[in-house]
Amino acid sequence: MGDIKHLVLAKFKDGVVVEELLQGLQNLVSEIDVIKSFEWGEDVLKDERLGQGFTHAFLLTFGSAEDLATYIKHPSHVEYGKAFRAAIDKVLAIDFPVVPKGISA
Amino acid sequence: MGDIKHLVLAKFKDGVVVEELLQGLQNLVSEIDVIKSFEWGEDVLKDERLGQGFTHAFLLTFGSAEDLATYIKHPSHVEYGKAFRAAIDKVLAIDFPVVPKGISA
Repeated sequence: MGDIKHLVLAKFKDGVVVEELLQGLQNLVSEIDVIKSFEWGEDVLKDERLGQGFTHAFLLTFGSAEDLATYIKHPSHVEYGKAFRAAIDKVLAIDFPVVPKGISA
Repeated sequence: MGDIKHLVLAKFKDGVVVEELLQGLQNLVSEIDVIKSFEWGEDVLKDERLGQGFTHAFLLTFGSAEDLATYIKHPSHVEYGKAFRAAIDKVLAIDFPVVPKGISA
């Protein structure tokens, strides 16, 4: 079984303290042990058309679809989701099983 | 310097042979040596509202913003971009420097 990635793009409402939400997410990642890795970042391309207004990307990796489902259903995630949704203007989410292609550097 | 990720989401036009485009992308990845890693996958969440119709995610990782710029400007990428744009209904792209958070599994 390969990894599956849970990708979330967000645009936060004006005045939202993104650092607080990130701390909450970091706590979530520390608490829920099915998360294999967590990466995030702020868009630097800033292309209005290509980026469609999304400013932040969050990328969670799981070892299986079952682990991702465990995360989604986890009470702490459900609770965090409420705060997250209250803070965003828009969100995009997709889940994709990773098809890795070996690259010899 | 940390890694920077180039994320592209796409929805292909009806009738497009995605495998051919993927092969072209794979060739690109093999050819352009500034690409640190390449992952892609097809959305399995299939949530119309959350996914906004995007069906595929492509994630390229570079060691620096300079390497990403080298990739973007590379003649083979420019050429591939024409075929890619001709095949898509919609596209979203953002670039984000990775803020890694260590997770002890």
